[in-house]
Amino acid sequence: MNRLIQPRTLKGFRDYLPEAMLPREGLIATAKQVYRSFGFAPIDTPALEYREILEGQAGEESNKQLYKFTDHGGRDVAMRFDLTVPLARFVAQHADSLGMPFKRYHIATVWRGENTQRGRYREFMQCDFDTIGTKSVAADIETALVIHDLFKALGFSQFTVHVNNRMVLNGLLERLELSDKATQVLRALDKLNKIGADKVASQIVAAADATEEQAREVLRLAELSGSNDEILAQLRPLVAGSQIGEAGVERLEQMLAGIQAAGAETERIRLDVSIARGLDYYTGVVFETFLDQLPTIGSVCSGGRYDNLAALFTKKELPGVGASLGLDRLLAAMEELGMIEPTRTPAQVLIPFFDKQRLADYLRLAAELRSAGLGVEVYPDPKKLGQQLKYADQRGFAVAVIVGDQEFQAGTCQLKNLATGESDEVALASGSDDLVARIRSLL
Amino acid sequence: MNRLIQPRTLKGFRDYLPEAMLPREGLIATAKQVYRSFGFAPIDTPALEYREILEGQAGEESNKQLYKFTDHGGRDVAMRFDLTVPLARFVAQHADSLGMPFKRYHIATVWRGENTQRGRYREFMQCDFDTIGTKSVAADIETALVIHDLFKALGFSQFTVHVNNRMVLNGLLERLELSDKATQVLRALDKLNKIGADKVASQIVAAADATEEQAREVLRLAELSGSNDEILAQLRPLVAGSQIGEAGVERLEQMLAGIQAAGAETERIRLDVSIARGLDYYTGVVFETFLDQLPTIGSVCSGGRYDNLAALFTKKELPGVGASLGLDRLLAAMEELGMIEPTRTPAQVLIPFFDKQRLADYLRLAAELRSAGLGVEVYPDPKKLGQQLKYADQRGFAVAVIVGDQEFQAGTCQLKNLATGESDEVALASGSDDLVARIRSLL
Repeated sequence: MNRLIQPRTLKGFRDYLPEAMLPREGLIATAKQVYRSFGFAPIDTPALEYREILEGQAGEESNKQLYKFTDHGGRDVAMRFDLTVPLARFVAQHADSLGMPFKRYHIATVWRGENTQRGRYREFMQCDFDTIGTKSVAADIETALVIHDLFKALGFSQFTVHVNNRMVLNGLLERLELSDKATQVLRALDKLNKIGADKVASQIVAAADATEEQAREVLRLAELSGSNDEILAQLRPLVAGSQIGEAGVERLEQMLAGIQAAGAETERIRLDVSIARGLDYYTGVVFETFLDQLPTIGSVCSGGRYDNLAALFTKKELPGVGASLGLDRLLAAMEELGMIEPTRTPAQVLIPFFDKQRLADYLRLAAELRSAGLGVEVYPDPKKLGQQLKYADQRGFAVAVIVGDQEFQAGTCQLKNLATGESDEVALASGSDDLVARIRSLL
Repeated sequence: MNRLIQPRTLKGFRDYLPEAMLPREGLIATAKQVYRSFGFAPIDTPALEYREILEGQAGEESNKQLYKFTDHGGRDVAMRFDLTVPLARFVAQHADSLGMPFKRYHIATVWRGENTQRGRYREFMQCDFDTIGTKSVAADIETALVIHDLFKALGFSQFTVHVNNRMVLNGLLERLELSDKATQVLRALDKLNKIGADKVASQIVAAADATEEQAREVLRLAELSGSNDEILAQLRPLVAGSQIGEAGVERLEQMLAGIQAAGAETERIRLDVSIARGLDYYTGVVFETFLDQLPTIGSVCSGGRYDNLAALFTKKELPGVGASLGLDRLLAAMEELGMIEPTRTPAQVLIPFFDKQRLADYLRLAAELRSAGLGVEVYPDPKKLGQQLKYADQRGFAVAVIVGDQEFQAGTCQLKNLATGESDEVALASGSDDLVARIRSLL
């Protein structure tokens, strides 16, 4: 006899069992529904791309993590590590037939050979939406509205979308004549929460060749607090005289007004000048979303506006704005907050099978209940009832419809509430309308 | 300036634009809904597996097509080429926590380095459902019911699920004392439609070392025709005396009775002793599904029963039954049959944006319509109305809600039916109930 192969998954990869997959599918379905309600259309791109396409835009860290190899035809290929580079390639390739503006969502798996010691997975799903081909503030506002509606639809009441605009800091740096040191300043500012204002100031002085007074002015911006209106009022003098800075403040004003007009809960939107979202990519509005009850898990939906999506692939200028939902992080949070019902079955009704002669009747009953819109499983083997009820309990079924030969003859069944253990005799009426109503009352 | 990278996809790979992705997502959503209504739960497995896990069960042809490489950690890995081998690995690995019976569906991408000259893609999606851990005929019946309900739910009225049981032919071969030549006989029989009965008979004689009379008896079985009951009646004498053959006929009888009891349209189910579904894998019932209007595209949903899913990975015997929906083939067929509405947007309502001062009002109106359950896109830039209506037309929106400054002041809008070009003045009532009803009447 042959040696058995040990069944195992690769390090950093994981199987999704039903209890993990059901909430994941639920979350994805909600995201799709919200994206679609704003007119975002789905697309998909290949898992494998020419390596040069992914490497061109990836940066050193991502390039090291790229799964790459040579295919059967001798081509250098790699597995996508995000959905942004494929989107850039896609839009450049199909720009003419897509037309602009182009609004898409893309929910798909990506791969990164990450260091798993940091708790990172090497395979995970991204869930992005973007509006390409417009610089309009309307698209910025809509991005915030999508995030707002999505978290409401997922059942969150306590979340905050943090909003900023990169043009504001750029305006201040212009006023301070530090525009050419923007990268160094941002890199230092990114550490504000970790190392504190004094150390950030020293780093700005050292890395950006700035005066102590310039560094303090930058920090004054990053540390502004108060209501959205209060912050806006304080921002204006800080960027006065800088065209880009004033434009940034104006766009923030328009955004907050538009979000309010659309009926979003304004207390869920917070102007937060401390967020910057990385160094090079974003050029306008930026978003981060935090769960008020779990601030330490970090942003669960982030994004922003960029000037030119696909400069590597086309001379056509393609501005855009969008965001990405952190699926895994969000699922972990929902579990921690008790928002996920533990179940291993998508059906709620189990019909035990314990009279072998009655298989056809069980199947007929199941079909009737199914046609009324219920999810119904018939246990496949005529085992002892206790064993089947134990199975129902382990799987998380809500009710069992128990019928033996006698009950079929009498036209009744025992309807068992599996949460409480209580049973009731209910008629197996033709069409099962009464039974359906009784089952629904228990779900 | 840097050289541009040519945006392109790999040979055998493709992008899905919204017009292709929308029907694909629709089909997948329907499949999930039907699978779930029978209690099949979703799972997912990694795209990458240890190479030995995929190679062990793949067969020579699949091994040649495997995308394989060495990862960052020096592991020999490969991309999954189907969902059956990962299922076997998955069930062997998690058998204890899954419990049996285990019903799962798995909708995911697979990769094969196929010869693209045959019109094959190297990346495609599979959509499988299986019941593991039971030999019950109830699970066989349910598999047929899922296929039946799925095609009904997709809107097909003319399809036929062909059903056979491998035990029947095995029984005949046992009676003819040709059991050890089953592979050779099946290989010849598989060509029946292509080369005709006479050549198949010669091949059986040559390859299976059979007499002309034995070959003719095998062909008599494969060519049986008539109603399901007529075929059953003819099958019995052909396998008389063979235990496995008689058991096969009995299971077919039970299956057809069960399908009928569950209320499936029996004319959609055809007993077809000519189908065998490959040589080694299936051991009991087998299924193929054909679209009556497009028989030449071949089976769009196939499967069957197998004795032992995961023999390479565990000593535990894991029988099962299931089938796989041919997504790409089915989408092509639905397009050919005019079942797919050509659209590039998931939203049906466009609100043109042509008064710059009114952005907040457009956003408010869109939010109101959206909260009534409509999909609504606001055009992001205040361009000429004609240009925005052209966009609406290209995308496939159903209606446009046209409002300028005057209309906002008057509390009205022009509701434009984009299919007919007709417009009507409708009140922008608070809450938009009337407007919502009028829009719905046009969808």
